[in-house]
Amino acid sequence: MAAPVLDFWFDFASTYSYPTAMRIRPLADRAGVAVTFRPFLLGPIFKALGWDTSPFNLYPAKGRHMWRDLERICADLSLPFRRPEPFPQNSLLAARVASAAGDAAWQEHFCRAVFWAEFAEGRRIDEPETIGAILADLKADAGSVLAAAQSNEVKEKLRSETAEAQRLNIFGAPSFVTADGELFWGNDRLDSALAWAKRSG
Amino acid sequence: MAAPVLDFWFDFASTYSYPTAMRIRPLADRAGVAVTFRPFLLGPIFKALGWDTSPFNLYPAKGRHMWRDLERICADLSLPFRRPEPFPQNSLLAARVASAAGDAAWQEHFCRAVFWAEFAEGRRIDEPETIGAILADLKADAGSVLAAAQSNEVKEKLRSETAEAQRLNIFGAPSFVTADGELFWGNDRLDSALAWAKRSG
Repeated sequence: MAAPVLDFWFDFASTYSYPTAMRIRPLADRAGVAVTFRPFLLGPIFKALGWDTSPFNLYPAKGRHMWRDLERICADLSLPFRRPEPFPQNSLLAARVASAAGDAAWQEHFCRAVFWAEFAEGRRIDEPETIGAILADLKADAGSVLAAAQSNEVKEKLRSETAEAQRLNIFGAPSFVTADGELFWGNDRLDSALAWAKRSG
Repeated sequence: MAAPVLDFWFDFASTYSYPTAMRIRPLADRAGVAVTFRPFLLGPIFKALGWDTSPFNLYPAKGRHMWRDLERICADLSLPFRRPEPFPQNSLLAARVASAAGDAAWQEHFCRAVFWAEFAEGRRIDEPETIGAILADLKADAGSVLAAAQSNEVKEKLRSETAEAQRLNIFGAPSFVTADGELFWGNDRLDSALAWAKRSG
């Protein structure tokens, strides 16, 4: 029997996706669940809701709580945390590179490295220098990957992943979807999502 | 030394406040934290954000996830769950009665009974019959409590509690505030809030 699966949907600009990206692999391995990292863009989904930026910017009290909450969560996980400036970061380049990676072994490492650069080191993820340096660290061919990331094929792939997220009723990140279509939203639902995936095969 | 304290802020119409109301007492007792139930009205706070109803109604995908998520949470806690109709319920009467109760011993029991009527039994909490029956069950004098709930003094008290919630940067329910002003939002932050209250005295 194949291992149970769980899709981890995220936008690189999403704050709560940072702790999820950092802790999902060991938790999934322990649960015997095969996780797929599925980057998408929240921007078009927020736009459809009438938002032109993060709800954490639109609603200051909500934003104030989120920053403090994330700080507490990272402290509990012993994860370094720096607030990205500006927020949200433009995640388009990183998402395209992750899409260009496809199912290459370094895709997941790349995703974690982007979150780390953004939230642990406070680097800008919209700069090709940041992304190029991450690719070089992973021994990927930065030049050809960055070129592939700008191809129509990859642009289209990312658009279609975002459309698929919307079809799955995803409205925020991180989100988790099981093989039987159960949707869980939020870093604090990771354990429940893994348990569901395991139970439902 | 006095026991550490935690304020539990909620609106009776708030969906995630139901599981919190049902589980906070034994968890707080075990943690040695003195909890105060502080009902307020989310309506004026939502209005200030530009919302004329629950965000779960304004954003259907968010609402769809919430109902399913709440169903899962209640199943895990072995709590019965029925979706209130209409949603959100008008919580004004229940909130005024809870305010009228002040620090009477039955205030907390009343709050739990209202959540139970609404989310376990699917009863309308805006009807004086529902609230009167709950009061009678608690051996409170339903007639005089319902009259007190309509007094200017109680109306003013509830308004000032809502203003205090806003001052504390509360933007949703359930919310928890410690003696040192730390704000936690959401049923899934209850454990963290209790731990914080305990640590910070």
